[in-house]
Amino acid sequence: MQDLDIDSTTKAVLEQMALTTDPRLREIMEAAVRHVHDFAREVKLTPEEWLKGIGFLTAVGQMCTPYRQEFILLSDVLGLSRLVNLMHDSQGRDEAATETSLLGPFFREKAPEIALGGSIISAMKGEEIVIFGQVTDPAGHGVAGAEIDVWQTDAEGQYDLQANDPSVMDMRGRLRCDAEGRFHFRTEKPVGYSIPMDGPVGALVRQQSRHGFRPAHIHVLVAAPGHRELITALYFGDDPHIDSDTVFGVSASLVITQSAGLEGNPLPNLPGIRYDFTLSPASDGAGGRVGSDPSKLMPTG
Amino acid sequence: MQDLDIDSTTKAVLEQMALTTDPRLREIMEAAVRHVHDFAREVKLTPEEWLKGIGFLTAVGQMCTPYRQEFILLSDVLGLSRLVNLMHDSQGRDEAATETSLLGPFFREKAPEIALGGSIISAMKGEEIVIFGQVTDPAGHGVAGAEIDVWQTDAEGQYDLQANDPSVMDMRGRLRCDAEGRFHFRTEKPVGYSIPMDGPVGALVRQQSRHGFRPAHIHVLVAAPGHRELITALYFGDDPHIDSDTVFGVSASLVITQSAGLEGNPLPNLPGIRYDFTLSPASDGAGGRVGSDPSKLMPTG
Repeated sequence: MQDLDIDSTTKAVLEQMALTTDPRLREIMEAAVRHVHDFAREVKLTPEEWLKGIGFLTAVGQMCTPYRQEFILLSDVLGLSRLVNLMHDSQGRDEAATETSLLGPFFREKAPEIALGGSIISAMKGEEIVIFGQVTDPAGHGVAGAEIDVWQTDAEGQYDLQANDPSVMDMRGRLRCDAEGRFHFRTEKPVGYSIPMDGPVGALVRQQSRHGFRPAHIHVLVAAPGHRELITALYFGDDPHIDSDTVFGVSASLVITQSAGLEGNPLPNLPGIRYDFTLSPASDGAGGRVGSDPSKLMPTG
Repeated sequence: MQDLDIDSTTKAVLEQMALTTDPRLREIMEAAVRHVHDFAREVKLTPEEWLKGIGFLTAVGQMCTPYRQEFILLSDVLGLSRLVNLMHDSQGRDEAATETSLLGPFFREKAPEIALGGSIISAMKGEEIVIFGQVTDPAGHGVAGAEIDVWQTDAEGQYDLQANDPSVMDMRGRLRCDAEGRFHFRTEKPVGYSIPMDGPVGALVRQQSRHGFRPAHIHVLVAAPGHRELITALYFGDDPHIDSDTVFGVSASLVITQSAGLEGNPLPNLPGIRYDFTLSPASDGAGGRVGSDPSKLMPTG
């Protein structure tokens, strides 16, 4: 019988997992065990602290519903989502292509189709703006018929999913670019918003003296055959939290500023913001969706 | 605005957590973030794998009930529980004192009181045995009136809690030692059993080609004023899984072997097993409960 000690326990666990059939699962779980054990040894985790951690993770899991994904939120506020996003971006994204951002937990398939120039907001409460631009390849050629999904909060900082009613689809839409890859749509200027602070992740963020806010942004997913799916977001540079996003999603190249009457605005009576998206060529291992519709992550049965 | 990259993301997260008021929480969360990020970078975690991980943790959390603690089970099969147990044992346990083991998820407060010589089994189905011995201090002096909690599975390998009925309390009991610290009680020989394999942790263990079994054992908690609480378990040396416990709980010094008519057996008509427990003096920071009644870990409200 092996008498385990503080160091040999790790080896014993790795040995017991050594027959894992899937080599990638084995690699991931071996690294996970090593890092979790190193963490516990480094901080000299006590039984009481371990139990608190178990209670915290249990509460995170129990907070998940088809409309809310508290584990993604935890990953977000610990910077893990952004890290995974950056690693994906470093593999196969063309240098000239638009940087990516987090998909987040509010993307939904099959948003309402919107004609070019249409509005994604059913009842405008905030400032109406027009977002316009062109989808191109790295050489600058327009991508005809590229499909764009956009989604955002309402003027109170809430996504439709937060209504917890699957029949509500609002502040989101799908549009198809024209033959030159050009697009424009109307929306209301989103506001910065707090992550949900009424769950265990919010409690942690509060204990960390963090404000819990994300700067105002519009999520964008661009897809076209032959091109790598682009998941990104446009961040409003005038938001007070543009430099301190609680989920670390902002990149300088994704910051937009509003300029009324900007050249090329197809609806010049509205304040317009131009942003052009550049797609990478399609590559293996694309699908950088760092986020998910929460209902897809609920265990079945 | 800071443009984050694969390495600087970690620094940005640590900076945002730097104002955490509780210094210990800050220390633990900083180490957690560093290790989680190092893990993700080491295995080059992809968005798809990250999403699988989120789905797995969500399923673990959703599997928890007042009768089942899947996160403790996860910690157990990854050897984290044992590691925390060993670290606690290395702090303040007297060299001569009995080694400790995992509390596990099946301990319950206020088990039925049993007179010395009584049985903890309401309906004996397996082989009846007597466990006897003495509780002493490191100098070998009996600890008068020490209180002993014992709990185990039935002859089918199930704990009472697995009936999911809080009114069922069986295969467990509390006894009080005599003036010399001596005790004896009757039970049935427990059997080795599989951890619950019908949840996400069981699925992982199966993917790792592990058998999922724990060797037969009896849990023991000994408490007496002036002494450090002893949480341990006695493992049956003739169990086929004594060298490959799925949760890494066995220590050589805790292995018992059955010997009928062993000297000093107060009930010599039954097979007897003697085990003496040695308590450490009380110390600060005791309470090495690596485990918990699952109902205590459910979020409230």
